[in-house]
Amino acid sequence: MAVASPQNALGIKSLLGTESLVKSQIRLIIDTAQEYRKLQDSKLDKIQSSLLGSLKGKTVVLLFFEASTRTRSSFELAAKRLGAEVIVLTQQMSSVDKGETLLDTARNIEAMQPDLLVLRHPSAGSPMYLDGALKIPIVNGGDGFHEHPTQALLDLMTIEEFKGSLEGLKVLIVGDIAHSRVARSDIYALKAMGCSVSVCAPPTLMPPKVEKMGVQAFTHLDEAVLGQDVVIALRVQFERMNQGQLPSRAEYSRFYGINARVLKLCKEDVLIMHPGPVNRGVELATEVADSERSVILNQVSNGVLIRMAVLHLLTKKE
Amino acid sequence: MAVASPQNALGIKSLLGTESLVKSQIRLIIDTAQEYRKLQDSKLDKIQSSLLGSLKGKTVVLLFFEASTRTRSSFELAAKRLGAEVIVLTQQMSSVDKGETLLDTARNIEAMQPDLLVLRHPSAGSPMYLDGALKIPIVNGGDGFHEHPTQALLDLMTIEEFKGSLEGLKVLIVGDIAHSRVARSDIYALKAMGCSVSVCAPPTLMPPKVEKMGVQAFTHLDEAVLGQDVVIALRVQFERMNQGQLPSRAEYSRFYGINARVLKLCKEDVLIMHPGPVNRGVELATEVADSERSVILNQVSNGVLIRMAVLHLLTKKE
Amino acid sequence: MAVASPQNALGIKSLLGTESLVKSQIRLIIDTAQEYRKLQDSKLDKIQSSLLGSLKGKTVVLLFFEASTRTRSSFELAAKRLGAEVIVLTQQMSSVDKGETLLDTARNIEAMQPDLLVLRHPSAGSPMYLDGALKIPIVNGGDGFHEHPTQALLDLMTIEEFKGSLEGLKVLIVGDIAHSRVARSDIYALKAMGCSVSVCAPPTLMPPKVEKMGVQAFTHLDEAVLGQDVVIALRVQFERMNQGQLPSRAEYSRFYGINARVLKLCKEDVLIMHPGPVNRGVELATEVADSERSVILNQVSNGVLIRMAVLHLLTKKE
Repeated sequence: MAVASPQNALGIKSLLGTESLVKSQIRLIIDTAQEYRKLQDSKLDKIQSSLLGSLKGKTVVLLFFEASTRTRSSFELAAKRLGAEVIVLTQQMSSVDKGETLLDTARNIEAMQPDLLVLRHPSAGSPMYLDGALKIPIVNGGDGFHEHPTQALLDLMTIEEFKGSLEGLKVLIVGDIAHSRVARSDIYALKAMGCSVSVCAPPTLMPPKVEKMGVQAFTHLDEAVLGQDVVIALRVQFERMNQGQLPSRAEYSRFYGINARVLKLCKEDVLIMHPGPVNRGVELATEVADSERSVILNQVSNGVLIRMAVLHLLTKKE
Repeated sequence: MAVASPQNALGIKSLLGTESLVKSQIRLIIDTAQEYRKLQDSKLDKIQSSLLGSLKGKTVVLLFFEASTRTRSSFELAAKRLGAEVIVLTQQMSSVDKGETLLDTARNIEAMQPDLLVLRHPSAGSPMYLDGALKIPIVNGGDGFHEHPTQALLDLMTIEEFKGSLEGLKVLIVGDIAHSRVARSDIYALKAMGCSVSVCAPPTLMPPKVEKMGVQAFTHLDEAVLGQDVVIALRVQFERMNQGQLPSRAEYSRFYGINARVLKLCKEDVLIMHPGPVNRGVELATEVADSERSVILNQVSNGVLIRMAVLHLLTKKE
Repeated sequence: MAVASPQNALGIKSLLGTESLVKSQIRLIIDTAQEYRKLQDSKLDKIQSSLLGSLKGKTVVLLFFEASTRTRSSFELAAKRLGAEVIVLTQQMSSVDKGETLLDTARNIEAMQPDLLVLRHPSAGSPMYLDGALKIPIVNGGDGFHEHPTQALLDLMTIEEFKGSLEGLKVLIVGDIAHSRVARSDIYALKAMGCSVSVCAPPTLMPPKVEKMGVQAFTHLDEAVLGQDVVIALRVQFERMNQGQLPSRAEYSRFYGINARVLKLCKEDVLIMHPGPVNRGVELATEVADSERSVILNQVSNGVLIRMAVLHLLTKKE
């Protein structure tokens, strides 16, 4: 899918997922994001830095077929902070209503000479499909149940920020593992960086043969959290409840919600993470979401920096 | 609510309303807006001026939970003309649909490191609530029936533009006083600048004990307009008609609409104002809206300048 | 409608249609767009060029009362590439919902001091109406069944790119001629440049007395395509089918769709064009849309360049 010899520092044309990333690539992205954090913290004249102006005169298109505040804003901010022009296309505005195929939409966008396309789409594999058809880099902003690579990268950056390093850490992911692109991207990326990953889900939401992904599977939360350095709670999609796959809100909260009692079972220095938006009282009790162990807002801050790094690295010629 | 010692020239962290503003603060905002008008009229190279580039490298987030063309565009233009990057978040796009609390939405936005947040929200007090929780300055772009401070400031700037000064002027506000954030903000600001303020409304739309706000109350328009230097007509919200609080369109127009007959009762040099959008034939007859006494479009022009001044002053370090 | 002596190089205040354009004006727009293509291809430092920075410090408002991906994005990109600030106002966001007239909306926008307004509106003549009322240049981005001048200009630029010149070429337009603003704008512009224009439509979709526009009219496609240098297929608006004016999807495709069989009847070097979005299998068979004769994506690329040229020429003082 990727072109033969991309001339950027990452050595890949597009960021489609974390499954195919190796440690050195993840390292480069996080290190670059940390450079951006230093620039942000230094309050230096932001306009001067060449690292910040690296997308000046370039155009980034955000093609979003699913509603999203956070991911869309984060990419938009990242691109604008690098000096890019940003065009946002959402399902409502787009010609897809008019019966145009995704490929025709994308080819039309490419004909307008943008420099990079960020795609969020409900169909797994759609960024890969477009990557094969377009010459410009594609960044996967979430594709169905498949991957959400920038979310995983910002999770890793946040863990490293608080734990010093990733190697050897024990990380638990709790929730609807079967339908979570965040879980999939996290698992691939965490394992690439030497973490030991566990998952905990109700049996109906656990992927069959999940152990093949190299993770340990739990169905009881109390047992799962023991000894974990990091606990990532996934967002519950209440739409699924109607389909009988999810227990009720109250039941989910009782068996899989992280509350003060569960937090006491965890290591004292555990990190509590969540990709947001949080359903307070469901995945996380309010006292946990707002506790000192929670680094949810750090994840959001790091999200912009990771996206800056990805946009910079994919468009920078070596 | 505000932090102890904000280091900007206004001496306040956020602009939440006009109720707490003093004369010197209003003076500074209007004077700064007039500087921007001079720059605009001079057609000087707009990029050169430091006053215009003052938000270069900064990010302004517009978080709008109510539909709005004018206010949103006006803030967007103001921020962009100062060199800021602007991110627009509307209810449709936002995660609030997904059950996130306003505070979580706002904290997430703050985590992305913007420099200022403009909030329009149907709940009175929401900007104040966020101001207590966030470190960045908040500008109230309208909160329920409470306040709309930039509208009041642009009204004052427009009155001063045509009347030379505000001190001692007689100003009448006509319409749904009880539910108007524009009326409230206007009353506070006009009185702070030494104006004598009256209101005129149908009895059902007059706030109880309105005289406590230091205004004179009328229910008959013919009597109310006599001797007024300025008449501000408020927009009628037809939604209320169904609730029985408002008379019919025709009745409202007959008793509270400013038409040619009413205009003749006014002082010859009266200013006719309206926050827009005008329901022609209801609050203002077309011949009045388009007359030489109407300064409605000047209000719109000044709106951008006032918002530039507010954004500049709240983000400028002393 | 236009002001007496506009001081720009085109000699017109606004671009309302192609009907009133003369050859030298069309020539200047296409030549300027070709300058922008050279700059784009040269990969020179895009920020340096004065041709590219010509809208720096200026504001362009896109007022779109009809949904549109392509035209809106194309104008947005064109304006941003020239350094302009862009404000997008769509029907959903606008105060028109609130009962404001188009003229009041436009005057309010003008009061915010933008430098140019692009209007797309379902009512034929609305850009002309606003042009008479506003001082700033208006660009018609499509008005009802009337005109879509930038589409025609990009069509001409594309034809010239592949045919070397326009003079004496034979061009066929196929589809719903009666309700197509693209057809009208194309016919005027092509004839101004010395092309010989034919149209082909089902009898119900052929305008009465179409020959008065100086075109040859066909109802049979096989006959119409013979000897044509260019075939422009129009998009079918399926909404009309319910109104009995259009045959079924299958019937339309059978009698008016360009498929491999029809392509064989055409000149070997015919150009196949379409304003997009294409209904594959209806106006164009997939093998035709994706064939080497199709220049649909070149049209999209040229669209941005034509719009850059138009924005530049209308705002540049001589």
